[in-house]
Amino acid sequence: MANVTKKVSWSSRADDSNATGEGTPLLHGSEQLGNSRQQSGGSISQIGRVSTVNMDEEITSEEDSLKGRPKEITHNEKLLSLKYESLDYDNSENQLFLEEERRMSYLGFRCLEISRWVVCGLIGFLTGLIACFIDIMVEQLAGLKYYVVKENIEKFTAGGGLSISLILWAVLNSAFVMVGAVMVAFFEPIAGGSGIPQIKCYLNGVKIPRVVRLKTLLVKVAGVICSVAGGLAVGKEGPMIHSGAVVAAGVSQGRSTSLKRDFKIFEYFRRDTEKRDFVSAGAAAGVSAAFGAPVGGVLFSLEEAASYWNQMLTWRIFFASMISTFTLNFFLSVYNNNPGELSNPGLINFGSFDGNSSSEYNLYEIPLFIGMGAIGGLLGALFNALNYWLTIFRIRYIHRPCLQVMEAMLVAAVTATVSFIMIYFSNACQPLDVVQGEDYPLQLYCADGEYNSMATTFFNRPEKSVQNLFHNPPGSYDPLTLGMFTITYFFLACWTYGLAVSAGVFIPSLLIGAAWGRLIGIMLPTLSSANATGQIWADPGKYALIGAAAQLGGIVRMTLSLTVILIEATGNVTYGLPLMLVLMTAKIVGDYFEEGLYDIHIKLQSVPFVHSEAPPTSHWLTAREVMSSPVTSFNRVERVGTIVDLLSNTSTNHNGFPVVVSNANGEEPAKLCGLILRSQLIVLLKHKVFVELARSKLTRRKLQLKDFRDAYPRFPPIQSIHVSQDERECMMDLTEFMNPTPYTVPQETSLPRVYKLFRALGLRHLVVVDDSNRVVGLVTRKDLARYHLGKHGLEELQLAQT
Amino acid sequence: MANVTKKVSWSSRADDSNATGEGTPLLHGSEQLGNSRQQSGGSISQIGRVSTVNMDEEITSEEDSLKGRPKEITHNEKLLSLKYESLDYDNSENQLFLEEERRMSYLGFRCLEISRWVVCGLIGFLTGLIACFIDIMVEQLAGLKYYVVKENIEKFTAGGGLSISLILWAVLNSAFVMVGAVMVAFFEPIAGGSGIPQIKCYLNGVKIPRVVRLKTLLVKVAGVICSVAGGLAVGKEGPMIHSGAVVAAGVSQGRSTSLKRDFKIFEYFRRDTEKRDFVSAGAAAGVSAAFGAPVGGVLFSLEEAASYWNQMLTWRIFFASMISTFTLNFFLSVYNNNPGELSNPGLINFGSFDGNSSSEYNLYEIPLFIGMGAIGGLLGALFNALNYWLTIFRIRYIHRPCLQVMEAMLVAAVTATVSFIMIYFSNACQPLDVVQGEDYPLQLYCADGEYNSMATTFFNRPEKSVQNLFHNPPGSYDPLTLGMFTITYFFLACWTYGLAVSAGVFIPSLLIGAAWGRLIGIMLPTLSSANATGQIWADPGKYALIGAAAQLGGIVRMTLSLTVILIEATGNVTYGLPLMLVLMTAKIVGDYFEEGLYDIHIKLQSVPFVHSEAPPTSHWLTAREVMSSPVTSFNRVERVGTIVDLLSNTSTNHNGFPVVVSNANGEEPAKLCGLILRSQLIVLLKHKVFVELARSKLTRRKLQLKDFRDAYPRFPPIQSIHVSQDERECMMDLTEFMNPTPYTVPQETSLPRVYKLFRALGLRHLVVVDDSNRVVGLVTRKDLARYHLGKHGLEELQLAQT
Repeated sequence: MANVTKKVSWSSRADDSNATGEGTPLLHGSEQLGNSRQQSGGSISQIGRVSTVNMDEEITSEEDSLKGRPKEITHNEKLLSLKYESLDYDNSENQLFLEEERRMSYLGFRCLEISRWVVCGLIGFLTGLIACFIDIMVEQLAGLKYYVVKENIEKFTAGGGLSISLILWAVLNSAFVMVGAVMVAFFEPIAGGSGIPQIKCYLNGVKIPRVVRLKTLLVKVAGVICSVAGGLAVGKEGPMIHSGAVVAAGVSQGRSTSLKRDFKIFEYFRRDTEKRDFVSAGAAAGVSAAFGAPVGGVLFSLEEAASYWNQMLTWRIFFASMISTFTLNFFLSVYNNNPGELSNPGLINFGSFDGNSSSEYNLYEIPLFIGMGAIGGLLGALFNALNYWLTIFRIRYIHRPCLQVMEAMLVAAVTATVSFIMIYFSNACQPLDVVQGEDYPLQLYCADGEYNSMATTFFNRPEKSVQNLFHNPPGSYDPLTLGMFTITYFFLACWTYGLAVSAGVFIPSLLIGAAWGRLIGIMLPTLSSANATGQIWADPGKYALIGAAAQLGGIVRMTLSLTVILIEATGNVTYGLPLMLVLMTAKIVGDYFEEGLYDIHIKLQSVPFVHSEAPPTSHWLTAREVMSSPVTSFNRVERVGTIVDLLSNTSTNHNGFPVVVSNANGEEPAKLCGLILRSQLIVLLKHKVFVELARSKLTRRKLQLKDFRDAYPRFPPIQSIHVSQDERECMMDLTEFMNPTPYTVPQETSLPRVYKLFRALGLRHLVVVDDSNRVVGLVTRKDLARYHLGKHGLEELQLAQT
Repeated sequence: MANVTKKVSWSSRADDSNATGEGTPLLHGSEQLGNSRQQSGGSISQIGRVSTVNMDEEITSEEDSLKGRPKEITHNEKLLSLKYESLDYDNSENQLFLEEERRMSYLGFRCLEISRWVVCGLIGFLTGLIACFIDIMVEQLAGLKYYVVKENIEKFTAGGGLSISLILWAVLNSAFVMVGAVMVAFFEPIAGGSGIPQIKCYLNGVKIPRVVRLKTLLVKVAGVICSVAGGLAVGKEGPMIHSGAVVAAGVSQGRSTSLKRDFKIFEYFRRDTEKRDFVSAGAAAGVSAAFGAPVGGVLFSLEEAASYWNQMLTWRIFFASMISTFTLNFFLSVYNNNPGELSNPGLINFGSFDGNSSSEYNLYEIPLFIGMGAIGGLLGALFNALNYWLTIFRIRYIHRPCLQVMEAMLVAAVTATVSFIMIYFSNACQPLDVVQGEDYPLQLYCADGEYNSMATTFFNRPEKSVQNLFHNPPGSYDPLTLGMFTITYFFLACWTYGLAVSAGVFIPSLLIGAAWGRLIGIMLPTLSSANATGQIWADPGKYALIGAAAQLGGIVRMTLSLTVILIEATGNVTYGLPLMLVLMTAKIVGDYFEEGLYDIHIKLQSVPFVHSEAPPTSHWLTAREVMSSPVTSFNRVERVGTIVDLLSNTSTNHNGFPVVVSNANGEEPAKLCGLILRSQLIVLLKHKVFVELARSKLTRRKLQLKDFRDAYPRFPPIQSIHVSQDERECMMDLTEFMNPTPYTVPQETSLPRVYKLFRALGLRHLVVVDDSNRVVGLVTRKDLARYHLGKHGLEELQLAQT
């Protein structure tokens, strides 16, 4: 099973990640302890007892056979993977760092600040360009496809033989999707899906392997073009967020490790702290480009990144967002031959919701909206539950790349077929002049001058369909069309999410919601007697908007940022209150049944995600109970051999080591005097910074911060560093390189307090000390992520090596 | 001088604040040390040497006479007052607290969460109601005033004797303003001004005395109505933010100490942590009601409150904001006889900026906008500099309440006179039909069917004037009118801000900016030759908007939140980028010359304001250098007499005391085992929680968290607690009541690191320990606020007892 999980996981190529040293787990606690813990681990573990299930060992296999297969797969989400590292959001303020900072003049800091702004501007610009590229490519390719199919359908409508059109459509769809799926499945599995869960994790402080690589970006962009052009029930908005993040990670580093090009700029930004800040700007720029919602983008980043509010950083994020939407807007205006007319702020355009009086809502509509929110929550929970089971199924059976490609092609063909059948059997016709901007009106069996109304939703790019549902005048759709469409599209979208293609779930959600929302809007006047209030019900587009919000909120469960994104997308503040109420209701109702879609996928990957607050009933846990101990620590001056041995110990792949000074009588535990990271030790070993060598070669260049930055972020694994037998006997002085002031907490600190400190400062290691400042334990991400509030009170997840 | 400063300070009644124990300063460091420091203090102090100037002692008087008066007044801003306490944003997680939390079930936490939402809903609702009340009252009173004056002017226009009209106008203005000024100057000086600086300080964690009292709210609301109706160059928006904050502080506590009513609800929220969270919601609700900008409100609160981002809290803040704007909107719609038509989201309404194509901007206009931003920054800096000198003047000469009232009345009369003269000598006439919504068109010497265009700006409520400048069709104003208006209003507004009346600076800033912005908009077509691009320049309203933003940005220097507020107020996301660029330029240009208006006033009050980041060049300062030492600490079991003596020592009014255990050989310093607050000790003393008494009276009720909550927030001063000579010999066991896990840092921690921890967690006391966990110092707010980046690098402010 371990293997199975690996295959579809976000870091599916274990060989690769191990080789680059990115997949080394964090478990702190000796091997021996790990084993003893295992025996106590059951399917529901008990609080206060640390339990680790090492999936690679025999004992687990025994447990497997005991519990039987199906149970064990669902078990998956009760695990916390040890393969994900944390980001070092806390600067290691060692002597080298302080020296550099102290050398820097005020002007130096100003220049740094300016270059941060420049980087953010670049991020925004490039993200906007990418959004523009995706938009134009999709429009061209999809336009071509629909044109060909439309011609074909029109050719065969009279003479019969529409099955040929169906086959043509299905083949075209499958071909597009195949290209996208092959790239994702074979080249970069991490580029699959919307990318939002991955970016959420990254911003949360989890280092997801390869998530911000150039290759991921290329596959993502090409993949999303293929899947949208291939007619799948997907959107191109989610992937934009991922793309923005990758752009940010690349631009801010001033080099590409993949391309082996180093531009020697922005070297100061080569550490996790700065990089994560830029990635939040990138994600915000992505949201901004996707929805034309710069403020929503900022809030999205803040909601996810969630360390303490830094005013300048937020302002820079906002700048990147603004530049991004502006760039997209400008280039699209040039593309549409209206240079300078900035009316396309985002990839999705909800159209203008103001000007006409029918866009007003009234007080007595509020309960109605809340009711729709509840429906959205219910449908969202259903969607998520179905998708959850589907994902479990995929984890078990569809883990080979070729199978994944085949599934994607199948879905593409089915989508085309179902759409075709729906259009074929629909006899809802509408006069052509009602709708102006209809791109591909299908006449089919309608009278001349009329078109098939089912086709406006199915035979169209999803963004356009959403707009149509929002803005087409009353009477453009009949209830049966909308009902059928809702049901079909619901299942199609649910099947599609999780395929090995780059694709977002925003647009399908909006589309489903808009369809049933408009349906409600159409039904309402018929339900209520036609009285004076009839005027208010007149606009079903308003209900389509509310329905879309409800459905989206029910599926993804984002709250504040989503409200703002939707407000910005509609361009109308008046809808703020109803949208907020709807999203809140959808979240409350949905949460009762099932988690949000992104959270489900994060959980299925067993990512140690640290939420913004400790579970409410966790006050009776203290640092003593949650910490890992005993802790492997080093002396201030340590023998090289000891260090190499400890780093090479694969069973305990620690990443942070307290540095201690033993007092005179050498008693244990020893007093804390610093904290050093694996990556720092590796650089020290690589440069052979040994006390003895320093004495012999006086001319030897002193190690500088630059050496650490050059190695960042792909520090070599310990295996690649050769240390001779003689060198093993040398000593290493860690004083200059360790962080001399790591954050500490006393053993009695309550979990919420530990949690708050950890989260507020974005820590990776928090040292637990006794009342004499002696190291007794270490709290890391997984020690906190382990506790969550389940149905039966506080639960503890198990740790696994997968 | 000390006395002078006191008179106009935010806490002008020193007697009162001392009696309630709210004004007790925080200085940590013994008296002796304080004296020794003083001698080293000069007018420019040196870094690394702590300098304290105690203004009440003789040595200061000597210095005074040496340096001469004027120099010494400017000195004021180089001081940091010790009279402001900090809020305890960090929970004291003592045994009582943990027991309560552990006793609480999951359901209990859910109820708590729900009641937080209810409180936020109430805050939003009441804030909206207050905004509505202010709006209606102002409209009625100002309407009445303008009606009377207009009738009078029309009566005397033909027959001469307009001087009677002038006198009538001036008297009416002065009368209104007098009522407002008397209330502020005699009853509640803290209610003067816009209240934004005070709320900024409160959200920053500084306890400003009486700022969130019921009395303050009443005076504020009545005061703002009077000053706006009195025709001063002020707005009613700033005071709304203060009002919202007071509402929040009141509602969330479930009682009013002023009215001596305790509703016995929301008792859990009676501590600084919860209260500050609610106050941020209140401030956001205020912004939201003032500008119809719920998202801007949230961002304002976050920008100012700025501890770490709590998702649920942000969401609640947003909820309060939404309810607030919705309530205002709804009640105004009822008032305007259009119930349900929700088109008045805020007190100020910028009007709709979309629909017509002229609202579009073009790429080549961007540099122009940036240029306008620079002008705004320059004018803003000028405004602030003038106001700064004026405030210094006021501090020195106009500190008696009656003088303050007279000044306010004078300004009111001058405003009326200047307006009248401007209108009288203006001969710019406009045909009446051009402007529809003109409330009080003055014909004066214009031909029939025409009106005086100067009067549309002067003879009107300022909000309406702003709207006119934004939306009146091209040609409504001639350049001379606008130019004259800009200059006059600039000086009037500058004179007005800082008067002893409740009044905001937003609207005057917008008005000045809109006037010169529109002027630029009118001049542009004449400057550029009339070519094809003439169409773009056609709408001067767009330039009015940009100018308004530039001027406002130049004066207040808010960045992110202001951009969002303006975007929401215009209801058009398209203007996002230009607005952001303009505000950024205005800030950069303005900051070069002078600080923001609010910051100036905060500095003049010597408030220890902790900015969101440490000064960039402060890495070479460590905790050892910034901390106060030696620290007064208590033993875990301490003699009552010692505690009483220490608390009564007025020279060292400490508020937090480390609790220590001496080790066997009794060496100093002793090991840290907890932290206890003055307020906690006072409650303990009041309830006589002595070890001996506990033994003798076994039936004695155990002290509970409720006892602390009941005393909150007005803990009695130590002088009011009587401890007999026998009791002085008793012992007090602090174990149960102290916070056993205070945050600590090692001595070597760099200032930015200390700063970050302090700010991220909203701390009040941060204990500095050595490598054996022995207390060596204490860092409090003023230790951090003391360092700031001046023109000559890092500067250190002096501490003063004023």
